[in-house]
Amino acid sequence: MANAVVSQSGGPTGVINASLVGVIEEAAKHKEIDRLYGGVHAVAGIVKEHFIDLKKLSLETLEKVAGSPSSALGSSRDKPDAAYCEKILNVFRKRDIRYFYYIGGNDSANTCYIVNNMAEKAGYDLRAFHVPKTVDNDLLVTDHCPGFGTAGKFVACALMGDDLDNRALPGIKIDVIMGRHAGFLTGAAALAKQRDDDGPHLIYIPERPVSMEKFLADVDAVYKKLGRCVIAVSEGMMADGHTTWAEKLVENAERDSHGNVQLSGTGALADFLAGQIKGKLKIKRIRADTFGYLQRSFAGLQSETDVVEARQCGRLAVQYSMKEDNGSVAMKRTGNGVNYGIEYFRTDLANVAEKTKSVPDEYINADGNGMTDAFIEYALPLVGELPATEYLGGYPTL
Amino acid sequence: MANAVVSQSGGPTGVINASLVGVIEEAAKHKEIDRLYGGVHAVAGIVKEHFIDLKKLSLETLEKVAGSPSSALGSSRDKPDAAYCEKILNVFRKRDIRYFYYIGGNDSANTCYIVNNMAEKAGYDLRAFHVPKTVDNDLLVTDHCPGFGTAGKFVACALMGDDLDNRALPGIKIDVIMGRHAGFLTGAAALAKQRDDDGPHLIYIPERPVSMEKFLADVDAVYKKLGRCVIAVSEGMMADGHTTWAEKLVENAERDSHGNVQLSGTGALADFLAGQIKGKLKIKRIRADTFGYLQRSFAGLQSETDVVEARQCGRLAVQYSMKEDNGSVAMKRTGNGVNYGIEYFRTDLANVAEKTKSVPDEYINADGNGMTDAFIEYALPLVGELPATEYLGGYPTL
Repeated sequence: MANAVVSQSGGPTGVINASLVGVIEEAAKHKEIDRLYGGVHAVAGIVKEHFIDLKKLSLETLEKVAGSPSSALGSSRDKPDAAYCEKILNVFRKRDIRYFYYIGGNDSANTCYIVNNMAEKAGYDLRAFHVPKTVDNDLLVTDHCPGFGTAGKFVACALMGDDLDNRALPGIKIDVIMGRHAGFLTGAAALAKQRDDDGPHLIYIPERPVSMEKFLADVDAVYKKLGRCVIAVSEGMMADGHTTWAEKLVENAERDSHGNVQLSGTGALADFLAGQIKGKLKIKRIRADTFGYLQRSFAGLQSETDVVEARQCGRLAVQYSMKEDNGSVAMKRTGNGVNYGIEYFRTDLANVAEKTKSVPDEYINADGNGMTDAFIEYALPLVGELPATEYLGGYPTL
Repeated sequence: MANAVVSQSGGPTGVINASLVGVIEEAAKHKEIDRLYGGVHAVAGIVKEHFIDLKKLSLETLEKVAGSPSSALGSSRDKPDAAYCEKILNVFRKRDIRYFYYIGGNDSANTCYIVNNMAEKAGYDLRAFHVPKTVDNDLLVTDHCPGFGTAGKFVACALMGDDLDNRALPGIKIDVIMGRHAGFLTGAAALAKQRDDDGPHLIYIPERPVSMEKFLADVDAVYKKLGRCVIAVSEGMMADGHTTWAEKLVENAERDSHGNVQLSGTGALADFLAGQIKGKLKIKRIRADTFGYLQRSFAGLQSETDVVEARQCGRLAVQYSMKEDNGSVAMKRTGNGVNYGIEYFRTDLANVAEKTKSVPDEYINADGNGMTDAFIEYALPLVGELPATEYLGGYPTL
């Protein structure tokens, strides 16, 4: 019998708390686990021994947590180096923590990996497990990541409404969506299309750099055809193979501890693109919205599939830790469409740590400005059922 | 027996289509109404005789329309003058249109009013009825406006998620919300507060101008106390009694046909406020989102109360038009909390046309940076049940 700790790291999602509750409810079933510590604010809290007692939570509280967006234990952007991980291990030793469950993206898998290796070398028996989480959907090995489906649902519902708004008051509309390197979430905008002429009419993701000339020519062509144009753009939209459009704009950019330029929480890219269209194409009505944090933390909006899978990933991390030394929980798709299903499995931490996945070529159209049917088939089951909408303006005239 | 026309004007909302369906289903019950024309793109479509046949729509289509955000018949920002209204009247004459249902805000009520007066002078028997609609909730006479509850629900859910996100990764968060002159929708952010230290911690609405010194002092005080601060700001936040902060910023601002500066669809105000805080308070992590069009047109998110009331307002416009010459549908509150209820009544077009309501003093706190309990009592029944959330980071440490 020993103690366990669970923490949540990186950017919040709409279902990272479902994974947390999965860990908590499964841990309660295993007598090997005595105390279950909740590490508040991820590794930053662990080294400060900021722990709460997760075995004391009522079932009612747990369900409320599972339905809440954002990280109920708080988060951190710290990227631990060897010295930092040594501190983590010292706290584990002091508190007899032998099970470490870390819910997060590839950086979190890497933290698990480093701490686990360190423990191994020191002869300290530790079971370190990573539970996948990211709205970016960019982890390797797994078919998809918990968090993506819920964020994708927000993006799809937003674009559905936004396209109807743009039909009512036609013009150009630009929506800037999260995604620094991977375009999966921006691609989810394509799920909003229910009719042939529905928007988004153009989608730009980081995997396909686009020059300003090409961008403006694309917009111009759609506008000339439909009299309006709805555009979904990744915050990480590239100007060329090296530089994002946002980086080209941002002087004295704030960089986080991972060396990344801040792309979310500013309307600069959206306003810049709107300005380019207004200046060069002489179109009058142009609006630009940046979805910002709403897309990752919006109360009351979850994908059912995403919730179920996120919770199961948490449960399985605990189950795997009873038999294996370390690993990351991953999913394999067993069927699509109405036969959608997944199998869960364990993969090595090294397979997930620090690496990222891009949107595969077969999901991006030849022109580099939209998604393919194969992408829709991939993403739709993760997002789940979407509202059906209607627009009457195109009906036969009387 | 004569024909009728219904149109939707101004900015779309999440339930303006419920009002449209209310008109359609009620019109079908009255043999006085032969054809029911849907005027596409409001007055702009009416003068071009762009009509569709609304009696041909199936019940299934009607329900889909009622659940869809934005204006299913399209909209227009045109503000008709006398010559324009003369054209409208000519089309009415030509098509034997004797019933005119116009769903919109105070400008739409005014259009109804002008066309109605013109018809009266010309001895043309016309029944002109206005159906209230606005996310701004700023119409006179009525207790509240269809459209506000649904937009308020979006804002509340967004702030709930955003506050949890800000707890997970603390810092300053600014959310810019629609509201050029009236602060009701920004005020709805206050509904997100479930715990004492929940955000939004500060709310700025157009009714209370705020200097930059006061704004920064408010933010500083909250940040020093909580280590974070979530701020809800109206796009029409005033610098003084005459000028908005957005107007102070925007050079060569686009103005719409009503002479208004464009405030939505740009991140400029949010980024400006973030820059002020960063520069003057030296706080590092500051994010700013502008909710933009998401708050008025988001698929799949409606307030149940709002939908029911919006539909009933549409029905009643038709019922009233069977007995009265003209008018606007209004609501009176008969009870609050669990006893929430309303009565509908007809009011004169002149009472609603061109006028706007501001947030009453008793709904604004003494400091001018937050809403009172009286406002919560007013707004909560309109928004309806909100998701319950949980955050664990403040639980007792172990």
